[in-house]
Amino acid sequence: MLILGIDPGYATTGFGIIDSLDDRIKLVDFGTVNTAKDLPQRERVLQTVDDLRELIKEFEPEEIALEELFFSKNVKTALKVAECRGAIIYELTRQKLPLTEYKPNQVKSNICGNGSAPKIQVQKMVQMLLNLKQLPTPDDAADALALAICHANHLKQKINFLQ
Amino acid sequence: MLILGIDPGYATTGFGIIDSLDDRIKLVDFGTVNTAKDLPQRERVLQTVDDLRELIKEFEPEEIALEELFFSKNVKTALKVAECRGAIIYELTRQKLPLTEYKPNQVKSNICGNGSAPKIQVQKMVQMLLNLKQLPTPDDAADALALAICHANHLKQKINFLQ
Repeated sequence: MLILGIDPGYATTGFGIIDSLDDRIKLVDFGTVNTAKDLPQRERVLQTVDDLRELIKEFEPEEIALEELFFSKNVKTALKVAECRGAIIYELTRQKLPLTEYKPNQVKSNICGNGSAPKIQVQKMVQMLLNLKQLPTPDDAADALALAICHANHLKQKINFLQ
Repeated sequence: MLILGIDPGYATTGFGIIDSLDDRIKLVDFGTVNTAKDLPQRERVLQTVDDLRELIKEFEPEEIALEELFFSKNVKTALKVAECRGAIIYELTRQKLPLTEYKPNQVKSNICGNGSAPKIQVQKMVQMLLNLKQLPTPDDAADALALAICHANHLKQKINFLQ
């Protein structure tokens, strides 16, 4: 089952796609969707969602996991990220795609066993779990892969519970 | 020229439509788009944008003015409003509709001559400018009308400047 993780932002949005098999998980693709600094915010949001739509069209993931937004010291930036998140949620909901949201500390807790694990620890765990030769970079892409893995774990727990 | 003003929110979104003629402005319609408290946030965002799309389809405004979001004491609420705003901006941009954004204090300054005018003063000025028998309510709808009037004034100033 293909799972797409999305770590949303208006400048850089991380994405990670994994294949969740019965006994293991496998990397499919990961990276970032970037928008130019000199574009108006609305064009950055539109481009981000358009690029994600293209990804979804190409890979046809069965499940999508999106990172929730947390309080931020920089409220102005947080509001702009929230606008981008809102556009993504709207488009996915409009397309009736199966969307699950996780808080950053839920993902860290699921992947690293520690809800406040530093970014490097998340990257190392993602590398290990997906058997990658190199540390996945940048952060946003690694976070998106962590989200997809977290969702795969949740779905497997649900299946085990039902059996 | 029909101008639609939108004061966005995930619970209540105010809208106001005016006709900006050469020598005066005329009320066309105003009101709110509301979503049920017990719906998930994503369904509320979807419903809000869907209702606005219907309004736009019905009235075919030539210009749309949207309220910008300001710092808020309640960051959690502000992030949810920002998500809704993001979805609206995305949909309007996707449809290539002409969108202009104004800060709340720009609108108040334009309508009342005071950037920090209280809500009741905005309502009274909107009532007077549109020659309404009653005070426009609720706040969100009056704010949306104020936005539309502010945009009409800006467009007229632009035309005067160019002549």
